[in-house]
Amino acid sequence: MTSPDFTPLAINLPDVMAEVSVQFARYEKALTSNDVDVLDELFWNSPHTLRYGATENLYGYDEIQAFRAGRPAQGLDRTLLKTVITTYGRDMATANVEFQRTGSAKTGRQSQTWVRMPEGWRVVAAHVSLLA
Amino acid sequence: MTSPDFTPLAINLPDVMAEVSVQFARYEKALTSNDVDVLDELFWNSPHTLRYGATENLYGYDEIQAFRAGRPAQGLDRTLLKTVITTYGRDMATANVEFQRTGSAKTGRQSQTWVRMPEGWRVVAAHVSLLA
Repeated sequence: MTSPDFTPLAINLPDVMAEVSVQFARYEKALTSNDVDVLDELFWNSPHTLRYGATENLYGYDEIQAFRAGRPAQGLDRTLLKTVITTYGRDMATANVEFQRTGSAKTGRQSQTWVRMPEGWRVVAAHVSLLA
Repeated sequence: MTSPDFTPLAINLPDVMAEVSVQFARYEKALTSNDVDVLDELFWNSPHTLRYGATENLYGYDEIQAFRAGRPAQGLDRTLLKTVITTYGRDMATANVEFQRTGSAKTGRQSQTWVRMPEGWRVVAAHVSLLA
């Protein structure tokens, strides 16, 4: 239902887009360089956070953090083929990319939902998979 | 950046959760019964909308709608193994499920980001894949 004072969310406000793009780029750099501190920082520290990966389903920040800590640091390099970031109002965004890992012929897809939390922009849900 | 009047988004407000859960259930029923009108209704009618499927990447509402229209209506039945819906403030939510198609041994994952638009709750981005 829509409340009487409902105001449609503004899509892709330039300053919000700029903020999210900066954090998205930080995440990408941290991912390919296995900078676990930054990866941990950018996921929401909450039991509600979840990440579906290519080979695992992780529920809650603790499971995601343990996965990061145990991951091999090699072979993470990738090229982004297509990136679509969309912002909705001032506090939420989606970031979706197609990517190709170095040495792989398969196309991967990464979907993230970002929310502005008191501590900053955070990924609240993510899904990574290879195109079948 | 956080503005001085920043108010943290309330997580899982009961009335918001109830609203999203109703629309999520409508989507699931429409998906398994191939009710294309409801599927079309519940995706945001925008060029920004995107859907990564198990075997295709669809950009914009028109591509998603064409995919729905061309999809075989058989074999869509599935069981939800695990469902996590989380709401952030009053206007956004994520819905993530693990599912198993009837007759398949593989686990699927479906991620949706929902936003309250003037026309109602809509999926703005979705990602479906099978666990490798």
